[in-house]
Amino acid sequence: MVFIATSLDGYIADRDGGIDWLHSIPNPDNLDMGYGDFTAPIDALVMGRVTFETVCGFDMDWPYQKPVFVLSNTLHRIPEKFAGKAHLVKGTIPEILEQIHQKGFYRLYIDGGGTIQNFLKEDLIDSMIITIIPKLLGGGIPLFAELPGPLDFECTESKVYSNRVVQNTFVRKR
Amino acid sequence: MVFIATSLDGYIADRDGGIDWLHSIPNPDNLDMGYGDFTAPIDALVMGRVTFETVCGFDMDWPYQKPVFVLSNTLHRIPEKFAGKAHLVKGTIPEILEQIHQKGFYRLYIDGGGTIQNFLKEDLIDSMIITIIPKLLGGGIPLFAELPGPLDFECTESKVYSNRVVQNTFVRKR
Repeated sequence: MVFIATSLDGYIADRDGGIDWLHSIPNPDNLDMGYGDFTAPIDALVMGRVTFETVCGFDMDWPYQKPVFVLSNTLHRIPEKFAGKAHLVKGTIPEILEQIHQKGFYRLYIDGGGTIQNFLKEDLIDSMIITIIPKLLGGGIPLFAELPGPLDFECTESKVYSNRVVQNTFVRKR
Repeated sequence: MVFIATSLDGYIADRDGGIDWLHSIPNPDNLDMGYGDFTAPIDALVMGRVTFETVCGFDMDWPYQKPVFVLSNTLHRIPEKFAGKAHLVKGTIPEILEQIHQKGFYRLYIDGGGTIQNFLKEDLIDSMIITIIPKLLGGGIPLFAELPGPLDFECTESKVYSNRVVQNTFVRKR
């Protein structure tokens, strides 16, 4: 499962990899826009090294209550500070999934552009909740990339938050 | 104003320029998905040569009730068959708009990827109704292109059609 925000033109980060524009929309009621409901039934998170290092760089406490699996074939170990919270996994996507499933984690929150793209290439994404921040960035790092073939989804729900931001839920139609 | 359909990954046509996938979603109730309501108050359409030639190639009658302005700096004349229906306009986007406004047409339906991109580059789009066909194409001709700077919109409305297709309305926030 995926829960991610994109710009209106489909970018998850700007040209410099920045995500400050995500917070350019006022959120006076401090809405979580469904994040709590989405994460409650999740068993674990799966993210790439880039997302992991971005989260590590945030000036805040570790934000996840669930185990986090970090996909990386270059990272040697998880920094001491995050031991027990984040776990390094290596291999192909099917191999990694096998390892995670063996630990009893099935409902997975797949995060980070590269990781989502790699899971989509293997047709391993069942649903995506995509929050559109209604700004054209005009360039940046796209959420979607080339795929070996088309994949059909259905939009099962759509919500407008703060009269401005729209969140669409897409479920894989197999 | 823009009224256009894209794939979930933001393409308006597939890798070969084809749009058959637009019709891959069953539409048993033959919904017009707001097209009639959108076009009723429109004064005229503005489209590029590629879109014009695509429409000319459809095996059907001329589909527009309103005047159509075709932007092209390479086309020499509108084919005889479409005389009085389509009008060739040349020049920069501001020059073209000036010509169209002088004829009394102000509420313009801007159509075609390249033309929409050129109008966005000049910040001349006030609203966009974007219908997302929930299919990842994995490649194709994108709706959006690079822009000189970010542009803010608001999502003012969202509708799900046939429990599958979502249509989001974005209005420029100036």
